[in-house]
Amino acid sequence: MNTLINDIEVIKTDQTTINNVDFDNLQFGHVFSDHMLECDYKDGKWHAPKVVPYGPITLDPSAKIFHYGQSIFEGMKAYKDEDGNILLFRPLDNFKRLNISAKRLAIPELPEAYFMEGLKALLKVDSDWIPKKEGCSLYIRPFIFATGKGFHASPADEYKFLISTAPSGAYFAGKLKVLIEEKYSRSANGGVGFAKAGGNYAGQFYPTQLAIEKGYQQVIWTDDNTHEFIEEAGAMNIFIRIKDTLITAPISDRILDGITRKSIIELAKAEGLNVEVKKITVSEVVAAAKDGSLKEMFGAGTAAVISPIAGFGYKDEDFELPELENTYAGFLKKRITDIQTNKCEDPFGWRYKV
Amino acid sequence: MNTLINDIEVIKTDQTTINNVDFDNLQFGHVFSDHMLECDYKDGKWHAPKVVPYGPITLDPSAKIFHYGQSIFEGMKAYKDEDGNILLFRPLDNFKRLNISAKRLAIPELPEAYFMEGLKALLKVDSDWIPKKEGCSLYIRPFIFATGKGFHASPADEYKFLISTAPSGAYFAGKLKVLIEEKYSRSANGGVGFAKAGGNYAGQFYPTQLAIEKGYQQVIWTDDNTHEFIEEAGAMNIFIRIKDTLITAPISDRILDGITRKSIIELAKAEGLNVEVKKITVSEVVAAAKDGSLKEMFGAGTAAVISPIAGFGYKDEDFELPELENTYAGFLKKRITDIQTNKCEDPFGWRYKV
Ligand SMILES: Cc1ncc(COP(=O)(O)O)c(C=O)c1O
Ligand SMILES: Cc1ncc(COP(=O)(O)O)c(C=O)c1O
Repeated sequence: MNTLINDIEVIKTDQTTINNVDFDNLQFGHVFSDHMLECDYKDGKWHAPKVVPYGPITLDPSAKIFHYGQSIFEGMKAYKDEDGNILLFRPLDNFKRLNISAKRLAIPELPEAYFMEGLKALLKVDSDWIPKKEGCSLYIRPFIFATGKGFHASPADEYKFLISTAPSGAYFAGKLKVLIEEKYSRSANGGVGFAKAGGNYAGQFYPTQLAIEKGYQQVIWTDDNTHEFIEEAGAMNIFIRIKDTLITAPISDRILDGITRKSIIELAKAEGLNVEVKKITVSEVVAAAKDGSLKEMFGAGTAAVISPIAGFGYKDEDFELPELENTYAGFLKKRITDIQTNKCEDPFGWRYKV
Repeated sequence: MNTLINDIEVIKTDQTTINNVDFDNLQFGHVFSDHMLECDYKDGKWHAPKVVPYGPITLDPSAKIFHYGQSIFEGMKAYKDEDGNILLFRPLDNFKRLNISAKRLAIPELPEAYFMEGLKALLKVDSDWIPKKEGCSLYIRPFIFATGKGFHASPADEYKFLISTAPSGAYFAGKLKVLIEEKYSRSANGGVGFAKAGGNYAGQFYPTQLAIEKGYQQVIWTDDNTHEFIEEAGAMNIFIRIKDTLITAPISDRILDGITRKSIIELAKAEGLNVEVKKITVSEVVAAAKDGSLKEMFGAGTAAVISPIAGFGYKDEDFELPELENTYAGFLKKRITDIQTNKCEDPFGWRYKV
């Protein structure tokens, strides 16, 4: 059955799998909704996207995605409010960042309407897949990869842009124990760390596995030159509260310009908290842990929103963070998720009704 | 038709495409031989490889290759000598490096027999695809990528290892003009530069495009911290001849341990040339270009073997290299290709008869 939604052609599945899904016990990014948005780049341009049944992709073995890592992605969430409205959070920022990543990875930039109208059409078709349960959401994964062929290390001439969605529960269970990295790193000066490039994540897996073997869940990334500056927490930005000041590293070509991070900065400032965007060293954090002025650390990203850190390891020493009654992490997480799910006013204009 | 070669199951195509191929005008990595080796990792182990008809691969949209760049590859060549013997060059070194890359990218390591016996069976089946023309070869592309599913930035639980081959001509036409990079970089300390990880190549495309727009063909990579140390030439190692000394950077976690590079070092030493493996700065090279002591620069890698550099750009200045009668590049390239193609003795034991 072909229909049009927001000018986007929709080909509906005749076999929904929604009845197989246990919406009360959702993992993260594990089951996929009935449809996906599909859009191809060939003959020098992006062709109109379509909503199609979620299903397998067929590629030539010489497709460049398999060889040269030409792939980028985004991560977003959709919520449903009490009235059944579908809500997104700052979706245009994801679109813009996708194109920033595209440029750095020599992938042709995508037209805004293909992204926004395509996404909206997809969400309308799969609206029943958006979980209503507290703490759950429909995780949205836009991604682009090289389908063009050839064993030649040069940009592909064909690409595929897809959006797939997954009803999801929490990303992490509980508080994190993290390891401050002294040897490995996730990005180079002049590299692709600021882009959501597939290759950045594969490179993190092995160091993270080593950290997991030592009893931690995530790595805190430091700069690749001195390992003295704190940059990110796994695939999240990082915030550190010393006394009553909330500190986060400035973005750079090594650090992703996280939408959660910048929302937290704005929100915290509006709430009268003291926020400083500045480079922060491992030595400062260790000293603050030792003298008791280190109050909180947390990761910030779309998947986990805010993920409190319970303690960290550094050079064979373990440091625990205090258990506070009222945390900035808890306060900010509630404020952001309330805005996201339409439980309060949105003075910033971040909420986006589909 | 199912048969067994070297204990490897072979499923032959009934539609060869070899008659469509113009073996007198081969590009590089553009047409693909009739068969490929296919080997899957699931349930915690690699399963026996098979030779199967070259054909499309079907993957779920949530396969981790599309999202997290978990992919590695190798590049090798097969030749045929006058007697019809199939010859490889140091294939065990490619196998070992594949597993070094696998480990860094959190991909399960591959058993040696699956790689070596599988490769030999594939080459026997597609033996007619090995070009006999001077300067041509069968380019061999072993690669592994994550097929396991899920929107969770963690290693996949399933992988595919394939070997595909492509009868190929020269990688570059003529001498290269290169640009010494001052801003972008290909790898970080503690990163994945020493691995043949897909993501390393996608990250090079954009800076290379910028260089191409300025009239160069390749970028000379420098260290990401100071951009003062010369590291690689595009996807090749680099050699610089100052007076009669051949210099190449030591390998590190940022630089690929090239098989051509190490063969050149050994060969040049055996031929009595003065070879130094040491860090070399851009300033040294520029000074040598100015005082006339810079004699040659060349890239070294499997695809191009040795690729002479005609000139380089640095900070808006262009430098030309002299046109010498007898070059180290020409001499070493002939020695290596003669060994590869069985036109001379092989005192090093590098040649490998299939
Ligand atoms: C490396 C990295 N840092 C930070 C973030 C957080 O960005 P955002 O808040 O836009 O999700 C992400 C993505 O989630 C990431 O992959
Ligand atoms: C980054 C890089 N450097 C150097 C080389 C040369 O290595 P090899 O001589 O083993 O082909 C390659 C691969 O060809 C490469 O990708």
